[in-house]
Amino acid sequence: MEDEFAFISRISPNETKQHTLICGIGDDAAVYRSSSHMDEVICVDTMVEGVHFRRDTLSPFQIGKKGLAINISDLAAMGAIPAFYLVSIAIPPTWSESELMDIYKGMESVAKPFNMDLIGGDTVSISESLVLTVTVIGRVEQGQAKYRNQAKAGDVLFVTGYVGTSAAGLNLLLEKGLDGDFTEHEKKLITFHQEPSPHVKEGRLLLQATKRVALNDVSDGVASEANELAEASQARIIIDSEKLPIHESMKEFSRTQQLNWALFGGEDFVLIGTIAKERADQIAKQFSEHNARFHVIGFVEEGETGVFLKEGNAIKKLEKHGYNHFQKRG
Amino acid sequence: MEDEFAFISRISPNETKQHTLICGIGDDAAVYRSSSHMDEVICVDTMVEGVHFRRDTLSPFQIGKKGLAINISDLAAMGAIPAFYLVSIAIPPTWSESELMDIYKGMESVAKPFNMDLIGGDTVSISESLVLTVTVIGRVEQGQAKYRNQAKAGDVLFVTGYVGTSAAGLNLLLEKGLDGDFTEHEKKLITFHQEPSPHVKEGRLLLQATKRVALNDVSDGVASEANELAEASQARIIIDSEKLPIHESMKEFSRTQQLNWALFGGEDFVLIGTIAKERADQIAKQFSEHNARFHVIGFVEEGETGVFLKEGNAIKKLEKHGYNHFQKRG
Repeated sequence: MEDEFAFISRISPNETKQHTLICGIGDDAAVYRSSSHMDEVICVDTMVEGVHFRRDTLSPFQIGKKGLAINISDLAAMGAIPAFYLVSIAIPPTWSESELMDIYKGMESVAKPFNMDLIGGDTVSISESLVLTVTVIGRVEQGQAKYRNQAKAGDVLFVTGYVGTSAAGLNLLLEKGLDGDFTEHEKKLITFHQEPSPHVKEGRLLLQATKRVALNDVSDGVASEANELAEASQARIIIDSEKLPIHESMKEFSRTQQLNWALFGGEDFVLIGTIAKERADQIAKQFSEHNARFHVIGFVEEGETGVFLKEGNAIKKLEKHGYNHFQKRG
Repeated sequence: MEDEFAFISRISPNETKQHTLICGIGDDAAVYRSSSHMDEVICVDTMVEGVHFRRDTLSPFQIGKKGLAINISDLAAMGAIPAFYLVSIAIPPTWSESELMDIYKGMESVAKPFNMDLIGGDTVSISESLVLTVTVIGRVEQGQAKYRNQAKAGDVLFVTGYVGTSAAGLNLLLEKGLDGDFTEHEKKLITFHQEPSPHVKEGRLLLQATKRVALNDVSDGVASEANELAEASQARIIIDSEKLPIHESMKEFSRTQQLNWALFGGEDFVLIGTIAKERADQIAKQFSEHNARFHVIGFVEEGETGVFLKEGNAIKKLEKHGYNHFQKRG
């Protein structure tokens, strides 16, 4: 098994090389040179068959796309430029070689627009579930990486795209299967789930537009990610339920269902963050000029650390994974 | 599961910080700064329960040690200095939290002498086998990384330590189990298997001693690794069976058994390489001064690419995983 698939863990050619890569092909490690004015950003994510994806909701190609996209999304949330990736894959005997190739092709399709090179990896066998671990390396101007701990009272809370769409798509897939009969709206939602687009451009726009921005990506749902911002920044974040951007393809679902997916669904892989209120209009304009979305969905105020959902005049505390207790607006 | 163990994937404190690490704690990615005169070296390895280790041959602590050591060994084979590591682990319900902590402690015990920082990772659940994926980052002086493709006729072939000991130890463990009754010699062999020491010092000595060295680490056995050197360099490598360094603890085993483990056993994690013959004595002296082993075990000559085993006057072609056909010395 290990030799059989070794070739797909090797170096991918890259015509428009913008990253300096010096690599001993065939060796177990890759060597590359950093830019003198950039910091390196690295992260790793693992997807397990049956836990993070199922073969009846994602094709092998889409598994590859998603495996790389969720990692690039982590880079995007730091304001970084993707550069390289490494792929470690544990393969059970139930997967064919062509399915494996499709996983790699899926990753390549995500990597290509970012000129990312596949610079290494490991291929091993496993008895049961496929395990895909992707390591990505990106770069960001020295000292400019964006973190979650920068939220301040007076900020607005924003997201860079629709939320809840991925969860809606997953729900449809679980209901009808990959080959189900779907409406055009439903197909759109399914694509949101199956083929997320990491918001690298949005991260770079924010980095260039403002020095202080608290930033995170929406992998576990708006409630969870906003809570990470609140905890890291010791801030009180208010989400205005009416301002959550809900995609028109979700109009068939009840408002409660829409809100539930938007807040707790996850895997939207848009960015969520906070910036000074007085910068919001200008940044919204810049986003619009670059064909990117910028939705203000709430604000940061003085008070108890946490995330709170404003619905009309009522406000309730929003825990990471659900509504916990109600609280009158102070 | 993912939140429960998240804390162990976080930053480890490092008092004697020799690598510049700027990190947003709690974020999904780590940010670090490279040295301007160094290249970055990265590699990733995955160990699967039941495939690469078994709970009846390694303790959780030793699984951690090995998981990191095999990666550091890849860095050592490039002549690199280890700097950081990231740990992605898929955990089945059969593993307790304290066992998991022991895995991390095992890794920490290997990382500490090298001042390596744990800078990130991912912790996910899986139904069956534990999967441990470690990514390591090292550094090497610009343009100085060592590769496998540098072997030339006239070189000597060397290893930097005993070979076959790990396989002998594994054999004993499979025979008698972790709690078996072992002689002192057997215990030594078992330790070779359970707690390999990556040859970083040896890699650095070679890098500093000579510009041209073909280098690899012995993870899959001398025959396999020598074949990688031969293929990458298009060279003909002769191993002299009488020169293979066999540890005295293996004296109870037959010569055939010793040779079999030395050539095909693997997991010794010493370095194997070739250098110009005229440099060998000086390098052996330097190794000796630094309390390191340097054993010449063969040579490189003109002729058909491949690896050949010399036994007395007979010479046979040595395939990666076994003797394939016999051949008279040309």
